[in-house]
Amino acid sequence: MKVAAVKAPGGLGRIAIETRADPQPAAGEVVVRVRASSLNYHDYAVVMGKIPTPDGRIPMSDGAGEVVAVGDGVTAWRPDDRVMSLFHPRWAAGGPTAEGLAGVPGEQCDGFAAELVAVCASALTRIPAGWSFAEAATLPCAALTAWRALTVEARIRPGDVVLTQGTGGVSVFALQFAKMAGARVIATSSSDEKLERLAALGADHLINYRRTPDWGRAALELTDGRGVDAIVDVGGTGTLGQGLQAVRIGGLIAMIGVLGGWSGEIPLVLATLKNVRLQGLTVGSRHEQEAMVAALEASGVRPVIDSRFALDEIAAAFGHQESQKHFGKICLEF
Amino acid sequence: MKVAAVKAPGGLGRIAIETRADPQPAAGEVVVRVRASSLNYHDYAVVMGKIPTPDGRIPMSDGAGEVVAVGDGVTAWRPDDRVMSLFHPRWAAGGPTAEGLAGVPGEQCDGFAAELVAVCASALTRIPAGWSFAEAATLPCAALTAWRALTVEARIRPGDVVLTQGTGGVSVFALQFAKMAGARVIATSSSDEKLERLAALGADHLINYRRTPDWGRAALELTDGRGVDAIVDVGGTGTLGQGLQAVRIGGLIAMIGVLGGWSGEIPLVLATLKNVRLQGLTVGSRHEQEAMVAALEASGVRPVIDSRFALDEIAAAFGHQESQKHFGKICLEF
Amino acid sequence: MKVAAVKAPGGLGRIAIETRADPQPAAGEVVVRVRASSLNYHDYAVVMGKIPTPDGRIPMSDGAGEVVAVGDGVTAWRPDDRVMSLFHPRWAAGGPTAEGLAGVPGEQCDGFAAELVAVCASALTRIPAGWSFAEAATLPCAALTAWRALTVEARIRPGDVVLTQGTGGVSVFALQFAKMAGARVIATSSSDEKLERLAALGADHLINYRRTPDWGRAALELTDGRGVDAIVDVGGTGTLGQGLQAVRIGGLIAMIGVLGGWSGEIPLVLATLKNVRLQGLTVGSRHEQEAMVAALEASGVRPVIDSRFALDEIAAAFGHQESQKHFGKICLEF
Amino acid sequence: MKVAAVKAPGGLGRIAIETRADPQPAAGEVVVRVRASSLNYHDYAVVMGKIPTPDGRIPMSDGAGEVVAVGDGVTAWRPDDRVMSLFHPRWAAGGPTAEGLAGVPGEQCDGFAAELVAVCASALTRIPAGWSFAEAATLPCAALTAWRALTVEARIRPGDVVLTQGTGGVSVFALQFAKMAGARVIATSSSDEKLERLAALGADHLINYRRTPDWGRAALELTDGRGVDAIVDVGGTGTLGQGLQAVRIGGLIAMIGVLGGWSGEIPLVLATLKNVRLQGLTVGSRHEQEAMVAALEASGVRPVIDSRFALDEIAAAFGHQESQKHFGKICLEF
Repeated sequence: MKVAAVKAPGGLGRIAIETRADPQPAAGEVVVRVRASSLNYHDYAVVMGKIPTPDGRIPMSDGAGEVVAVGDGVTAWRPDDRVMSLFHPRWAAGGPTAEGLAGVPGEQCDGFAAELVAVCASALTRIPAGWSFAEAATLPCAALTAWRALTVEARIRPGDVVLTQGTGGVSVFALQFAKMAGARVIATSSSDEKLERLAALGADHLINYRRTPDWGRAALELTDGRGVDAIVDVGGTGTLGQGLQAVRIGGLIAMIGVLGGWSGEIPLVLATLKNVRLQGLTVGSRHEQEAMVAALEASGVRPVIDSRFALDEIAAAFGHQESQKHFGKICLEF
Repeated sequence: MKVAAVKAPGGLGRIAIETRADPQPAAGEVVVRVRASSLNYHDYAVVMGKIPTPDGRIPMSDGAGEVVAVGDGVTAWRPDDRVMSLFHPRWAAGGPTAEGLAGVPGEQCDGFAAELVAVCASALTRIPAGWSFAEAATLPCAALTAWRALTVEARIRPGDVVLTQGTGGVSVFALQFAKMAGARVIATSSSDEKLERLAALGADHLINYRRTPDWGRAALELTDGRGVDAIVDVGGTGTLGQGLQAVRIGGLIAMIGVLGGWSGEIPLVLATLKNVRLQGLTVGSRHEQEAMVAALEASGVRPVIDSRFALDEIAAAFGHQESQKHFGKICLEF
Repeated sequence: MKVAAVKAPGGLGRIAIETRADPQPAAGEVVVRVRASSLNYHDYAVVMGKIPTPDGRIPMSDGAGEVVAVGDGVTAWRPDDRVMSLFHPRWAAGGPTAEGLAGVPGEQCDGFAAELVAVCASALTRIPAGWSFAEAATLPCAALTAWRALTVEARIRPGDVVLTQGTGGVSVFALQFAKMAGARVIATSSSDEKLERLAALGADHLINYRRTPDWGRAALELTDGRGVDAIVDVGGTGTLGQGLQAVRIGGLIAMIGVLGGWSGEIPLVLATLKNVRLQGLTVGSRHEQEAMVAALEASGVRPVIDSRFALDEIAAAFGHQESQKHFGKICLEF
Repeated sequence: MKVAAVKAPGGLGRIAIETRADPQPAAGEVVVRVRASSLNYHDYAVVMGKIPTPDGRIPMSDGAGEVVAVGDGVTAWRPDDRVMSLFHPRWAAGGPTAEGLAGVPGEQCDGFAAELVAVCASALTRIPAGWSFAEAATLPCAALTAWRALTVEARIRPGDVVLTQGTGGVSVFALQFAKMAGARVIATSSSDEKLERLAALGADHLINYRRTPDWGRAALELTDGRGVDAIVDVGGTGTLGQGLQAVRIGGLIAMIGVLGGWSGEIPLVLATLKNVRLQGLTVGSRHEQEAMVAALEASGVRPVIDSRFALDEIAAAFGHQESQKHFGKICLEF
């Protein structure tokens, strides 16, 4: 095992990277040669120690690569199959359960900052046809979170209005899935330049929340006072108050965000008066990842990759993520 | 009242047309100057006596026009508002009920083959911005049926596969709504020329069911054996058997169709074995019509109008419908 | 108009009571002789000025009585029909909308502290067969809130676990509906004596939250660590933190409560990690009130009436409510 | 392997029974000492050759027993755990899929007419606390079918009306679950004596369909013309026509039945006009079996066992089933 040493005040901790060459698949397992990963806030929280993990835990929940060996009894995969990981490897289908949420790679077990990994055959799905490994590696955490928020929880329909926040991975995927499903999108960002890029991806309305801190009311006005059907909230306490202004009566706010923390006060009385659903969520099931792959193939939509780093540049990659300057996903390629 | 006399063996009956000029709105009512209507199989069944109605019943369930007067207590509408009718005027929202399904215009009460009608203020919705009356008049029966089948009952999502049958009004709208929602569409027709037109509207796969009578299996193969998520069935007994072949395990068949009748045998055991949902349905609620209008505005999609007739050419219009040569909707303009 | 007597520091304000004898029904309206009402926190907030209303607003959202006259065009009701009011008179069915939530009696228009009222025919439902008016008057606000929380939003099933808080109207109805639906109930209260009464109504598990302030953990243990399926939260900030401990992964917390206010901090990160749904809600639709009446008739369950006051004792009734000593509903009888 | 040889023209075929004493659990497997099974129509169809299976296939989809050994990697079970089988061992949760429906024991792989079986650890659930093995063995096929029909598909609520047909296993469980969920039940049977027994189990209304062949209309009248919310149909073509008369607008008919076959004509036009949902279904998922166990424990309800046979009396057991005289479940005890 190699350790990518990283440090300085406020900087990144030690990151364990697995470079052993020859895991053997047990019965029911598959060995995958990892070819790409991508960075999520969850990975950042792990390597920074915000989420406690055992010493030497190999990080990164996302991985994409090719099958190199299959164990006894595995019928779903063959060598050379192009596969990607699951954030919740034990969640097959249906709603969330304690059993299904356990076993997150890169946190509760070793993750994909490794050249070769052995995983359970049911902990993989195929990647979209024609996609690169880096593209596929953007999907398991960020894209599936946005997919579940909009298509499973909010069940958006054509003509619905969706509000997204900023330009992180989840938010950009939320914009893309919302457009794919025929919704109108109100995109918010602190940068006019980024808003232009969101418009190019299909955003129908743009709000610079730096210039318009009362963006909840602005969004309400963009819907002629009716309100937004679904908000993919990534800001927590920092954004929920405005979101409760923006959301329509009976609408949904998907609470994903931890970027803004959860420590302040929130005007929850509005949620009661407006009959709003606040839906906490962490990613989704294998069944939903498969449905998302089908949707991506049918649509031709591709992920927005901000930048690519080599595996041994992982510390620099996290530094870039920390700077909050990215637009879309930061990838690792092996 | 004027009566458009029509007859010949197998031909159309007498059609009552209302041309009185001055209904007054009672409290809660609105008088609408009807500017357009459109033909549905339901209207044909009424004028042909397949659905019994009282003598002198004014036909046509669909109407679009402008408000000319409002009764006491009406706040929702003002003169000059552009409005369209509801197939189920008493169904506000939620699921179907006996109370909500009653009062279908053109059957259980007088319809829109009339220059001026007085209707309850809640029996109207606005029409999509920028649409002509003829375009709007295509929506209340056929489009709302397709909308409900796909977005309320099947709850299709991006990447789902939808199968449509032929080129009637419901089927063409189903194709358009399916594409709007990010689905893949398998379109079937007996004519290669019509299939080309369906492809131009976005159909992803085409099956000529005359050349491929075993089209259920063909559709199954187009989905790599997985099956179709939702079928908008308009053929009844004539198509349900093939549909049960085509549909995926756990999929949905919306049973709208009366074109093929319901008198033959159907292999329902397949519905049990495949855990299929057969959903009978007749149009939808006002709430859904409003949602459909929002979706149409957001998408820019316009209805496919096959042909336009003047109100006093109504018999010729039904004759054209009877010939089964149309593609999309046949409209009446006043 | 008579004004009921009013009051001391911290006490109740002026309460308008309507005693005019002869409203006439307009077209579509019904005149009801009100025979009973009941007190809700909403009424208390109105009469105390916490919810601002115009001067002279007649309070009380709940009313039950008999029809004495019907206006033109009313077919649903006849004189002597036994009816009750709707909290949301314009919400027929389906999900909540701005239009549907408007027009709450006793706040946005005059309420039922009156001997005779004229209301829209669609703003009433029948009362359960064999019930007194006082019993029926307990239903429109408190019972329908509990009914919607459990059967519409949480969609509880036999074997689910429901947690209720205290002994107010909503909570006691929640206990009764949960048992009716085959659920297990964990009831919480600050009084052992009240807990005994909750046990007599069917509560399976009892927690005295005064002795067990960490009642969230206690509830979790009662479910062997799995957590509670649905919580009917009436305490807001004061209880939501413990509720998030108690609720299962993927469970639901119905946010009704305003008793504890909404001003403090809430550990919402738990909602995200546990994939919890926080559902704000205010009462329900006419369709649901009708379903609830059918359920009450089928079950034989009767409401728990804490005490009865005459209409001109209304100030004393609110004083009793303010003391928080009640168990179930406080009624007014005329 | 022992073969229970059976029988005469129109009678039962050869039934393979497994009596080998020592299967070893592979990794991920569990060996169960089977202590009881129960008979379903599906088992009858297998042993009679109506469902083709390979020679020597060991029948019986239902099994209950105790764990005697666990393979590598199994953490869910330990020796002496009391467990029962799953009809769809590969269906973990969520909706039905091709993958999930495959692998039915006693048909697509060997079943539970065996003293010891080795099965995948995920193909078992615990049995209700305090139940005998024979009682538990009644659940995996018949009870879970009824549970899914009513609580997953129909989502019945208190006050709903459920109609059941006859006194077979599915129908008696449907009655029990419907009562558990607060529904009213209309029970139908051809025997007054059996109707009395159904009343004793909680049926609210009784129809002898021999004396009242137009039982659909009779059920409609029992609901004051509104119709039945959900029908658990076990008769197929023989009962669906009457069911379509009985069901309410927007109601559901669960199509389970194969007893009456599917070969006749069915007035499906009624399904369209009444907006009825016909839901085909075969049993359910592990997640639902676990929920059903919790519901049974909470309710105290026990299965109705018609009769018990020893394993080597299996032919007599099937003969009894064929006679259609049973009420509830026929069990095998080992």
